[in-house]
Amino acid sequence: MAEHIGHFISGKHEAGSGTRTGPVFNPSTGEEIARCAYADRATLDRAVTAATEAGQRWGRASHATRQSVIFKLRELMIANIDMLAETIGREHGKTTADAKGEIARAIEAIEFATNAPHVTKGEYATNVGGDIDVFSMRVPIGVVGCITPFNFPIMVPAVMTAMAVAVGNGVVWKPSEKVPSAALEFARLWQEAGLPDGVFNVVQGDKEVVDGMLEHPGIAGVSFVGSTTVGEYIYQKGTSHNKRVAAFAGGKNHMVVMPDADLEAAANAFVSAGYGSASQRCMAVSLLLPVGTETAKRLRELVVPKIQALKVGAYDDPAADFGAVISAQSKLAVERAIGDCVDAGGELVIDGRELSVPGHARGYYLGPTLIDHVTWDMEFYKEEVFGPARGIMRAATLDEAIAITNRHAYGNGAVIFTRDGKSAHRFTNEIESGMVGINVPVPLPVGYFNFGGLRRSKFGESHLYGPDAARFYTKLKTVSQRWPEPDQKALPISLAFSGSA
Amino acid sequence: MAEHIGHFISGKHEAGSGTRTGPVFNPSTGEEIARCAYADRATLDRAVTAATEAGQRWGRASHATRQSVIFKLRELMIANIDMLAETIGREHGKTTADAKGEIARAIEAIEFATNAPHVTKGEYATNVGGDIDVFSMRVPIGVVGCITPFNFPIMVPAVMTAMAVAVGNGVVWKPSEKVPSAALEFARLWQEAGLPDGVFNVVQGDKEVVDGMLEHPGIAGVSFVGSTTVGEYIYQKGTSHNKRVAAFAGGKNHMVVMPDADLEAAANAFVSAGYGSASQRCMAVSLLLPVGTETAKRLRELVVPKIQALKVGAYDDPAADFGAVISAQSKLAVERAIGDCVDAGGELVIDGRELSVPGHARGYYLGPTLIDHVTWDMEFYKEEVFGPARGIMRAATLDEAIAITNRHAYGNGAVIFTRDGKSAHRFTNEIESGMVGINVPVPLPVGYFNFGGLRRSKFGESHLYGPDAARFYTKLKTVSQRWPEPDQKALPISLAFSGSA
Amino acid sequence: MAEHIGHFISGKHEAGSGTRTGPVFNPSTGEEIARCAYADRATLDRAVTAATEAGQRWGRASHATRQSVIFKLRELMIANIDMLAETIGREHGKTTADAKGEIARAIEAIEFATNAPHVTKGEYATNVGGDIDVFSMRVPIGVVGCITPFNFPIMVPAVMTAMAVAVGNGVVWKPSEKVPSAALEFARLWQEAGLPDGVFNVVQGDKEVVDGMLEHPGIAGVSFVGSTTVGEYIYQKGTSHNKRVAAFAGGKNHMVVMPDADLEAAANAFVSAGYGSASQRCMAVSLLLPVGTETAKRLRELVVPKIQALKVGAYDDPAADFGAVISAQSKLAVERAIGDCVDAGGELVIDGRELSVPGHARGYYLGPTLIDHVTWDMEFYKEEVFGPARGIMRAATLDEAIAITNRHAYGNGAVIFTRDGKSAHRFTNEIESGMVGINVPVPLPVGYFNFGGLRRSKFGESHLYGPDAARFYTKLKTVSQRWPEPDQKALPISLAFSGSA
Amino acid sequence: MAEHIGHFISGKHEAGSGTRTGPVFNPSTGEEIARCAYADRATLDRAVTAATEAGQRWGRASHATRQSVIFKLRELMIANIDMLAETIGREHGKTTADAKGEIARAIEAIEFATNAPHVTKGEYATNVGGDIDVFSMRVPIGVVGCITPFNFPIMVPAVMTAMAVAVGNGVVWKPSEKVPSAALEFARLWQEAGLPDGVFNVVQGDKEVVDGMLEHPGIAGVSFVGSTTVGEYIYQKGTSHNKRVAAFAGGKNHMVVMPDADLEAAANAFVSAGYGSASQRCMAVSLLLPVGTETAKRLRELVVPKIQALKVGAYDDPAADFGAVISAQSKLAVERAIGDCVDAGGELVIDGRELSVPGHARGYYLGPTLIDHVTWDMEFYKEEVFGPARGIMRAATLDEAIAITNRHAYGNGAVIFTRDGKSAHRFTNEIESGMVGINVPVPLPVGYFNFGGLRRSKFGESHLYGPDAARFYTKLKTVSQRWPEPDQKALPISLAFSGSA
Repeated sequence: MAEHIGHFISGKHEAGSGTRTGPVFNPSTGEEIARCAYADRATLDRAVTAATEAGQRWGRASHATRQSVIFKLRELMIANIDMLAETIGREHGKTTADAKGEIARAIEAIEFATNAPHVTKGEYATNVGGDIDVFSMRVPIGVVGCITPFNFPIMVPAVMTAMAVAVGNGVVWKPSEKVPSAALEFARLWQEAGLPDGVFNVVQGDKEVVDGMLEHPGIAGVSFVGSTTVGEYIYQKGTSHNKRVAAFAGGKNHMVVMPDADLEAAANAFVSAGYGSASQRCMAVSLLLPVGTETAKRLRELVVPKIQALKVGAYDDPAADFGAVISAQSKLAVERAIGDCVDAGGELVIDGRELSVPGHARGYYLGPTLIDHVTWDMEFYKEEVFGPARGIMRAATLDEAIAITNRHAYGNGAVIFTRDGKSAHRFTNEIESGMVGINVPVPLPVGYFNFGGLRRSKFGESHLYGPDAARFYTKLKTVSQRWPEPDQKALPISLAFSGSA
Repeated sequence: MAEHIGHFISGKHEAGSGTRTGPVFNPSTGEEIARCAYADRATLDRAVTAATEAGQRWGRASHATRQSVIFKLRELMIANIDMLAETIGREHGKTTADAKGEIARAIEAIEFATNAPHVTKGEYATNVGGDIDVFSMRVPIGVVGCITPFNFPIMVPAVMTAMAVAVGNGVVWKPSEKVPSAALEFARLWQEAGLPDGVFNVVQGDKEVVDGMLEHPGIAGVSFVGSTTVGEYIYQKGTSHNKRVAAFAGGKNHMVVMPDADLEAAANAFVSAGYGSASQRCMAVSLLLPVGTETAKRLRELVVPKIQALKVGAYDDPAADFGAVISAQSKLAVERAIGDCVDAGGELVIDGRELSVPGHARGYYLGPTLIDHVTWDMEFYKEEVFGPARGIMRAATLDEAIAITNRHAYGNGAVIFTRDGKSAHRFTNEIESGMVGINVPVPLPVGYFNFGGLRRSKFGESHLYGPDAARFYTKLKTVSQRWPEPDQKALPISLAFSGSA
Repeated sequence: MAEHIGHFISGKHEAGSGTRTGPVFNPSTGEEIARCAYADRATLDRAVTAATEAGQRWGRASHATRQSVIFKLRELMIANIDMLAETIGREHGKTTADAKGEIARAIEAIEFATNAPHVTKGEYATNVGGDIDVFSMRVPIGVVGCITPFNFPIMVPAVMTAMAVAVGNGVVWKPSEKVPSAALEFARLWQEAGLPDGVFNVVQGDKEVVDGMLEHPGIAGVSFVGSTTVGEYIYQKGTSHNKRVAAFAGGKNHMVVMPDADLEAAANAFVSAGYGSASQRCMAVSLLLPVGTETAKRLRELVVPKIQALKVGAYDDPAADFGAVISAQSKLAVERAIGDCVDAGGELVIDGRELSVPGHARGYYLGPTLIDHVTWDMEFYKEEVFGPARGIMRAATLDEAIAITNRHAYGNGAVIFTRDGKSAHRFTNEIESGMVGINVPVPLPVGYFNFGGLRRSKFGESHLYGPDAARFYTKLKTVSQRWPEPDQKALPISLAFSGSA
Repeated sequence: MAEHIGHFISGKHEAGSGTRTGPVFNPSTGEEIARCAYADRATLDRAVTAATEAGQRWGRASHATRQSVIFKLRELMIANIDMLAETIGREHGKTTADAKGEIARAIEAIEFATNAPHVTKGEYATNVGGDIDVFSMRVPIGVVGCITPFNFPIMVPAVMTAMAVAVGNGVVWKPSEKVPSAALEFARLWQEAGLPDGVFNVVQGDKEVVDGMLEHPGIAGVSFVGSTTVGEYIYQKGTSHNKRVAAFAGGKNHMVVMPDADLEAAANAFVSAGYGSASQRCMAVSLLLPVGTETAKRLRELVVPKIQALKVGAYDDPAADFGAVISAQSKLAVERAIGDCVDAGGELVIDGRELSVPGHARGYYLGPTLIDHVTWDMEFYKEEVFGPARGIMRAATLDEAIAITNRHAYGNGAVIFTRDGKSAHRFTNEIESGMVGINVPVPLPVGYFNFGGLRRSKFGESHLYGPDAARFYTKLKTVSQRWPEPDQKALPISLAFSGSA
């Protein structure tokens, strides 16, 4: 019988009511390995109540108390990295190396959350006028709702909740129903780190739970990572209930390569940043965009053999470069996108659709696929293809490359490979993407900077981690203070101010 | 014939199409003094296009260029203070002294906007790992839509647009249709300060224009100040079009007075902060909340004669303490609120409804009104009464006073008068208001701090001025940069790096 | 035979040349327990060379690499707290509880040092004019020399070196020759934490080593904590060799008590903050300064029995409130200061000079001593008495209390006990001390703020820990950058920008 | 009879005692145009007393009051730019265009000083532990002593004093005795801007006055700009009196040109940045350092005709590119340096020593001079040559160019011209200069960044303007605050907290 995966509320596992559940698969084998409970409204209510009550106490705890838990969580993440990587790989399909890389970024965000007492400081000014001092303070917003995608079962929630909790909020988290197990492990680590029960809660589920969270008056702010379609829905629905919402959405990350670039390095970067983790990353390079026909020709010659050499396998195959995609539907969708693209005129340079992985015939595998001469009107170009099919477009000039990139609806990451200072500077200044790489193929900012795209890659004004996240998870109070003279009559020892003592 | 007031687009006055107009009154006399054009969609489109195109050039201008305009605007505001005060008073009704106070706060915000080059700085870190440097930059969001209320015809727009423009955006501003003239004067000063035509545009109008702005794809962010009902609408509708929105809404500002307070000072503070500008300020004190029956008794004795001594008059009467309310409807609404409150059990201590101002029989005047024993279930208490009718409630303890204040839907300002450090500290920490005063009756933060309430007094996560406004009007780009070795072959003078030169 | 304690250079223990050594005592027993090597110039040179070379590599290491060591050091401090407390107590005499408190503050500073990547960020501005971008970066200064006192064998060096190392410097540290063993343990923990050999070096010794450091051209900056006499010498001599110097010196911390204070709480605070650690703390309360004769009378009645109840004992006696002073000379000096004070007219309320601790007849013990009616012209008042003898002065008014406090040469900590907001505000604003306590008897700032006094309690402009320390241990480079157009001729693929591709 | 130039103390001009005076020349004509009083100790004492007393009141003034003066000063600088430029030119010799450029930078610093309320904010943290809040504040240090050089009679003092005054200090300023008139004009503008008398004082004089300032117990901090020899003296002597000192000293600014640079642009940059203002700028380019023999050959061919085309003339000759040097001695010193350099093997490419300016036979003119093949052992190279004689050195590689630059004692500015990102990045990271230019020949940071060199170009840890200057001119107080429960008995109205009201 398949395992049953439930919720985690007030420090306790809950099986869930059982009326609504869904299957959990191992993408490497295609087997259903568990049933996951989908929360009903009463369960969600209990989680919000727990987060509210425990969160209020937690928000009043001292910085010293809160910091000690964050430091401890970091240690536990390091100590449990093998267990977490296995849990991730089994339900997600990514290789163990990939999973560990994800956890390393989670740890980085937790490390920055230890800065919370510093980055939440208010300001203080003396005598702004009329002998008034003014100071400000950042206080927790209350309960933070987190909604996370399947592709980073640990990193995304860690990135959200480390700071949300560090600054004193309660949390209600709905993980992707495709990867529910890592959530319970992460909740257990929070508990082991000393976080009071009720501050951190996991409710498993689907869109119904999402809607419940967005409508819930007890949730003050919502952090989301996922697709653009859902991100836009979350932003609009969450704000329609007056919440603050930061929704991080899809990407179509163009990699511009200038003629003066180190082409060998660029080719390597494209292959690893394009196909890693089966391309199921919002910061994956989607498109190679060489400037000049000669650059395009040489680059294509360089990348093709490197792509062909990539090995696809089960998450626990140490020789695999990447694993299966998340689901049968996802595999089908990518296959269709490839087919449509070829029908629309794309040149199929490498076709990964017929791949079979020995011993894993039912796994959701796709081989690396490359299509040249992709054009802007193809669905394959317009949509974020969440599987190992990448494209090549061409530009005649840097101006054109920038124009192409900026015309796309998404503005997550954008990358240029060049040696020229001016080209890099122009790209940086003119590109309409939130995260820019100069010879860095995956410009995911380090944990003490902020994550976030522009245009349809982000909804809301805030960022996912870094100093700006501390701001999103807090609200500001500003105090103007002036003191009158002491009341002589009220002093218990009346001669005190008389000067005659 | 009444004057006609139009728009200001691309540096030029426009009469408007004329099919939609509305009346403008002088509240001190009740006369209709002008007709104001209400923009149609084509007019709005032109304004947005102007702001987009001129804004893009302006956003690329250097900090030096932009700063010089802000400094110049400050000088012009000072030089034109009499003209502006007259323009405000004529359509709004506030006294000249009040109007000048408003302009002084506008200047304060403009002064802080001269800090824009500093407060918009990004961050820079070297070698975060792998020889990668990371840096960030704040760039203009594009076109900012401003929607402002009647009660501060110059201050609120100055506060919004000084920073919005300083950081490089274009602006489309819809003033209150009740006070349209100040908008044109302010636009003229921007122009005279050297701002390129098209960066700053005024479209006059009503809700139809507001809707047009909220739906307009060319507007990236919206700043609003006004009532809670409209603020909520703006936030929800603006975000439903994926904009960033900061909406600053109504207040019901409780003034808690402890037994140990300087009661004489508290009484003076209540009268000036409660009735100033005919109470038409979101930061006005709405309610006196003494702690302890004895405190209540003494305070009431102190405030009554002070309130009775207040003089109401035309905006240009130098002896007037405050002027008319904005409109006949507004006058009627306040009168009704008073009547309902008395019907519901309130004790009418001072009744201002019968006031007549000699020589101005048709002006919208209301005398100062005080109702004791207001209770939480009265509409008079629940709603923001935008006219000179204030109430008294009572609390037995500080705990109760805090609880009462926090139970109200609004969380703009909250004030305590006390000499005791602990009482002030508890109030500061426990109160759910964005702006807190300790013996400061109007805790409007100084211009280098941030304005904003909590709960239903603010929608959105950002603030109205101060450093946080610079953030709201910009978006963040984060760059990860690594350089490869120079290409020896490409160097024009090939021996350069050979070491053999 | 006594143990021999040597240096730690380039990751290795060194016995030292042996020609110069000094004794190390256990103050609780009066026994000589070890001989400590005193470094000669050649040894110091080797340490500086090691720090320079290893420091340069370390300074070029990524933030990620450096941070991982700081996090690990924190874990090791926690894991080794018992060992460290024992090492401290044996040579210093403070109780185990005191030693653990010290280590807790050390850990707090190490925790803040994990913020180094954030707090050392430079700034970035685009197009300041002429298409120039400007950015800044903080880089290590090179080799930091640390000179630390006997009274905090672990806390002070941890506080200095955690940030000095985190930001990329090499360190040469000379501990107090009275407590040399803790230094070697701390060095070992740095090594175990993964710090490359040579970055952190310990040279034991006396003034000769101090002079060598101050004169050494290889040391860029010097951090010192100790007496005012030595601090002034260090500042003047270090700067005469063009170094940056931050010297933290003595204190004479007045505790003002207002008539409206919680007198019971104030009395408890005085006893613990005055006598804890045998008063051998620069932040210890030195003087009780009640305002008003009645306040003085009541406070004296409250503190006397509490002081008499204090128990003095060996460092490892769990019942002891405090232990021996550091040396026989120190004991003698305090005894003389008491005698002189009494001769000069002080009223000896409690005399601790005759104390004997059973079983430890030769330990350097002094009982808690209290002298009332201390006056400003007594040596006992002018000097920092580094042993458990405290005084009482009296003031008639707050004005007088502030004047007295500000007239003293030292300005480290100053404390007021009051309930009144205005009294606290006036004290805060008017007092000339770097660290102020409002009802907090030891106003040692938490690790994410900065430590430092004013007047003769600090020489130099910087602070000991917190964000400002990151600044002291780095130097600033500011870059103005503009890029010319790419050189068409140099492009390897010449058609790239032609637009004809 | 020559004009007499005196002091400005407490808002009044003082002739000075008259026993010590010195001549003031017009360098363009060689005429003595005035006698300048040199202050005696009594005069200095009066200035310090004035600054202390007026400074204390000024330091307690509100930010609003202080800011209004800074804004007004800015307006007056703009309004008086012609008068100031004339005053500068007459005593300094620089052209009117140069003088106006200097004043523009002065205004830039004044503009940043309007940010003082923001950049001096302290920090605020709630409940760091034990219900303690911690906050910090920056307060004025007291009296700032400013010692400024002849070469920027307005810019340097404006840069220092705008922030020193804005944050609340008193100032005692000793200008260069060669350019005393501009000081009095600047003082007058401060007064006209509304600065209270006594806050800003000018004492004219020589080294004797400098020594008096450095020894004066009433001066808390010293800002200096001038030569390295004097700067080192100031730092050491000032700190020996326990002051904080920031001394900005000489430069020898190397301009590295890579083979891939835009050579035409580099040549223009060298000529303007090298010879502008007769090279009397610490940020002037001193040396051209081409990388590769071919680069050197081409660059030399480009720069020679441009240098030969430079026109030297009187300060009020609108056709002049630059003017006379400051004094006959200075002219002689530069001539000698040229001669010695040629004797030591330098190739005199352009010799400016025989220049005569028609109509100004006695002016201190030197024509532009260029020496190639300068070597590191020549005095001409080692010293800062303060006149229009520039040199060329050669490097084979970027490594060598960096090594040469870093080997020089000075580390003020360093510049690279290149198109290559990696070359610029390596230069930025490896160069030991405080201000770095990438294709920017004079990397003087804009006013909202900080000015300061490394190595022997700066003594002290602070910077000349920008945010760091606000720190230098203030000291920090950190407050730890906790409030006890209110005293029930002391409340004037006893039922207040009883709950029975």
